[in-house]
Amino acid sequence: MSSTVSRVRAAYARIAAVDRPEIWIGLRPRDETEAEARTIDERVARGEHLPLAGRLFAAKGNIDVHGLPTTAGCPAYAYEPRADAPVVARLRAAGALVLGTTNLDQFATGLVGTRSPYGAVRNAIDPARISGGSSSGSAVAVALGIVDFALGTDTAGSGRIPAAFNGIVGLKPTRGLVPTAGVVPACASIDCVTVFARTVPEAEQALCHVTYPPDRPLPALPQRAPGPWRIAVPPREQLGELDEGWAEAYQETVGRLAAAGASIRPLDLTPFTEAAAMLYEGAFVAERYTAVGDFIDSLLLSGGAGLDPTVTGIITRARDIPAHRLFADQDRLTDLRGRALAALGDADALLLPTAPGHPTLAEVAADPLGANARLGRFTNSTNLFDLAAVAVPAGEVNGLPFGVMLIGPAFTDDRLAVIARALEPRVRLAVVGAHLTGQPLNPQLLALGAVREHTTTTAPAYRLYALPTTLPKPGLVHVGAGGAAIETEIWSLPAEGLGRLLAALPRPMALGSVELADGTAVPGFLCEPGALAGAEDITRHGGWRAFLASR
Amino acid sequence: MSSTVSRVRAAYARIAAVDRPEIWIGLRPRDETEAEARTIDERVARGEHLPLAGRLFAAKGNIDVHGLPTTAGCPAYAYEPRADAPVVARLRAAGALVLGTTNLDQFATGLVGTRSPYGAVRNAIDPARISGGSSSGSAVAVALGIVDFALGTDTAGSGRIPAAFNGIVGLKPTRGLVPTAGVVPACASIDCVTVFARTVPEAEQALCHVTYPPDRPLPALPQRAPGPWRIAVPPREQLGELDEGWAEAYQETVGRLAAAGASIRPLDLTPFTEAAAMLYEGAFVAERYTAVGDFIDSLLLSGGAGLDPTVTGIITRARDIPAHRLFADQDRLTDLRGRALAALGDADALLLPTAPGHPTLAEVAADPLGANARLGRFTNSTNLFDLAAVAVPAGEVNGLPFGVMLIGPAFTDDRLAVIARALEPRVRLAVVGAHLTGQPLNPQLLALGAVREHTTTTAPAYRLYALPTTLPKPGLVHVGAGGAAIETEIWSLPAEGLGRLLAALPRPMALGSVELADGTAVPGFLCEPGALAGAEDITRHGGWRAFLASR
Repeated sequence: MSSTVSRVRAAYARIAAVDRPEIWIGLRPRDETEAEARTIDERVARGEHLPLAGRLFAAKGNIDVHGLPTTAGCPAYAYEPRADAPVVARLRAAGALVLGTTNLDQFATGLVGTRSPYGAVRNAIDPARISGGSSSGSAVAVALGIVDFALGTDTAGSGRIPAAFNGIVGLKPTRGLVPTAGVVPACASIDCVTVFARTVPEAEQALCHVTYPPDRPLPALPQRAPGPWRIAVPPREQLGELDEGWAEAYQETVGRLAAAGASIRPLDLTPFTEAAAMLYEGAFVAERYTAVGDFIDSLLLSGGAGLDPTVTGIITRARDIPAHRLFADQDRLTDLRGRALAALGDADALLLPTAPGHPTLAEVAADPLGANARLGRFTNSTNLFDLAAVAVPAGEVNGLPFGVMLIGPAFTDDRLAVIARALEPRVRLAVVGAHLTGQPLNPQLLALGAVREHTTTTAPAYRLYALPTTLPKPGLVHVGAGGAAIETEIWSLPAEGLGRLLAALPRPMALGSVELADGTAVPGFLCEPGALAGAEDITRHGGWRAFLASR
Repeated sequence: MSSTVSRVRAAYARIAAVDRPEIWIGLRPRDETEAEARTIDERVARGEHLPLAGRLFAAKGNIDVHGLPTTAGCPAYAYEPRADAPVVARLRAAGALVLGTTNLDQFATGLVGTRSPYGAVRNAIDPARISGGSSSGSAVAVALGIVDFALGTDTAGSGRIPAAFNGIVGLKPTRGLVPTAGVVPACASIDCVTVFARTVPEAEQALCHVTYPPDRPLPALPQRAPGPWRIAVPPREQLGELDEGWAEAYQETVGRLAAAGASIRPLDLTPFTEAAAMLYEGAFVAERYTAVGDFIDSLLLSGGAGLDPTVTGIITRARDIPAHRLFADQDRLTDLRGRALAALGDADALLLPTAPGHPTLAEVAADPLGANARLGRFTNSTNLFDLAAVAVPAGEVNGLPFGVMLIGPAFTDDRLAVIARALEPRVRLAVVGAHLTGQPLNPQLLALGAVREHTTTTAPAYRLYALPTTLPKPGLVHVGAGGAAIETEIWSLPAEGLGRLLAALPRPMALGSVELADGTAVPGFLCEPGALAGAEDITRHGGWRAFLASR
């Protein structure tokens, strides 16, 4: 079975397994996508260059996919697009396969993922919480492994908030880098098409195919001043009220960037948060009426079936905003933007939590406007200021994903993605033998970028054997009762280094989960069962070093 | 034992183990570096921000390190520097510890690593081959895991050729990005300080600390035209004669970039190779006489002890090159540079083998000038044209490292490093159970970016057990004789993905080396010995899927 076909089958199996029908508005029939997958595999076999072959994606329901209705989350608004939106067409031309269109906050108006007649989209990790929106279905489809990446849109944060809540990556490109033709507008002048994926490289790989070709002169950029990454961080009090544990998680992320060599500098967040408030409270919301106001008004005359009441209220209230207020708001925004760019200075990026907190479905239902307004505190100003942003996972708080954003000047998208890689978590490794400090294989660890964290012991559930290997090595064996605590060094290293260590590991050594004295478990050295034949039990020494010293 | 101290001890243990005394010209005494390491650890413990704490580096012997003589590879030239070169000082200020100064082709004149009275530097992988030069000792110290990174210099390729020959990374920054004060000049107007490390991120982390602060206006850059990376590749015949297997390895690298989504375009290499020939054959070599010619002449009068004859010949022959030839060469270079930049067009990078081949020490001894001239075919023109370059490993040919370069416009150093990451090799994984296509844990693999390559079997040396795990999983056990061939899927994925898979692996599963039917071995799923208690032997089914179907 070929690669794209098997990927498609895995996707439908996954869709059945996760039972989240609310993700999709238009899921393509399996026989149709399997036939398309077969064609893709045949083209690859013929030697065609299809760099995205084997990758599946989903498109937010406000983006045209030929053969499926474009709904923007409103059944009565549905139309049959005559062609794919350029973004979809380019991904398909590169060999990617679109699985369907996804649910969204109606007319991309909301950051919650609940404002849809197709159902509230439940969070990928905790179904009692919101998915975030408006690109709700796209984010959850990626987070649950159904598709490899997905398209969203982002006006106020719709391509970032759901990334943060579902533990994935959201790239919000500079305005104008990605065509918005074939996309139902929210605020046409600042809408951006975005990409969700589980890792930054995967998101970048998809994004590079949908950016505009150079059919117009692009602005010259000031040369970045050399030196370590310069990261701007606002004072704690300017972040306002955050969910429990989020301030600490944010501070930890700042520390991780500093540890990776970044220079951290203070920034006054005031212009950012003041502009954020203008997006829904000021005159800019009138652009949403420009987009779909007439449609909503006439649908309301015929009963308004399928309209989300919260969205309808927001858009129809914008009908009577006078133009002179828009002029005044534009002036104020120009002033705030100047102050924001001055605050950024030559910083490469502003680091912020993506959202101030993660509400439950019930909390949003109880206060639809208030809960939503709070969510956009950090995201709303990005597109108004014409900045680029990357939202990435930054660990967990209370078992739920915590995410941060890097926000930088227009056209610094690539640089933000590079900085984001410095945030990828390191993994740990339990070492009990030839890789211990001072032992013969320790340089392997050092060469992989490993750093020793501390020395401890395993849980009292292991026995240690001297294996009859050419280079003397111990074999650690979990026995439960009758076991002892074995001396163990804990190292940390990049996940890439751990993968390379494993790729070079010779028989009979193995790596698996090792239980430590403190009850946690980390990957560590074990051995194959067959290696124990004729091996001496050296558990009584309490560790490899003590055994060596005893000989 | 604290982190920097233990790292220093590991370094001296490694130095003793590898027995390559020719790496060093000035190795610092162990008690001195241990004392400095202790101070660094104390400062970190007090909360000081030292982003390079725990990292060891070496400096090429033409770079001033306070407390060690600067020799440039010539004992008679030695002087005691009054201070660290700014590059060394900045690394030390960031917490890195310098272990000593390294051997080099005398006066940084050569690409071989053999032109030194301190001994020819042997290759890290094959001691019968050259290390490459002129930054020979620095590259081998990194490749052997003695230090974490090292400083080199690059005029004609000295920071890249040794990277390629020793399987490591060499960053050759844009001219002027890194201060050359405190560095013995080779060709002062085009010399660059470079960084060696085992991976791109490690090299970048060190480099960012030694780039110039913005004390002068930097040129604005043309905005990069959006879209996939555009990689320029010359036609095969313009690469000229290459070592056996190198053309295929180069073509494979081109294919890997294309598979990662890059668009490949042809480029006429003629201006690059014509300029390369001018570096030693034309008038530019006279700049080497400007730097050290008077010194060599007077040393020759007193017998010339410690002068390398090949280097002396090159530099003294440059004494009588007339200035009018330099003017003519400069004109010709300007023309060639214009043609080269036009050939690059809006390509992000030119991809080239770093060197055309890897000679033995004996081959270089037999033809010191000819062998050296051939090595610089692809590297010589980079600094003459004011371009940036990154040299990275790209696999092996006949058991030796094969390396490629990405060369791009000035000040695109960051971008080249990002593209280089797309060249990092994927690793393979043997799957026999719940991660097989269509099985419950297969989405985990898909989520890590894994792609199925093919289906095969293990070597006929395994037995398969149905483990009593909650989610049914098989345990694969190597038994040698009495074993069978078990159905196995081979997947490929980024090393990072393999590391993340391992980090999340629960007991009693393990990962280790699995022998395949074709005699190769790849990482794959195994299990802990204890898991086999009470497990049913299902080897007769030939695989997990057949066993499941039989129930």
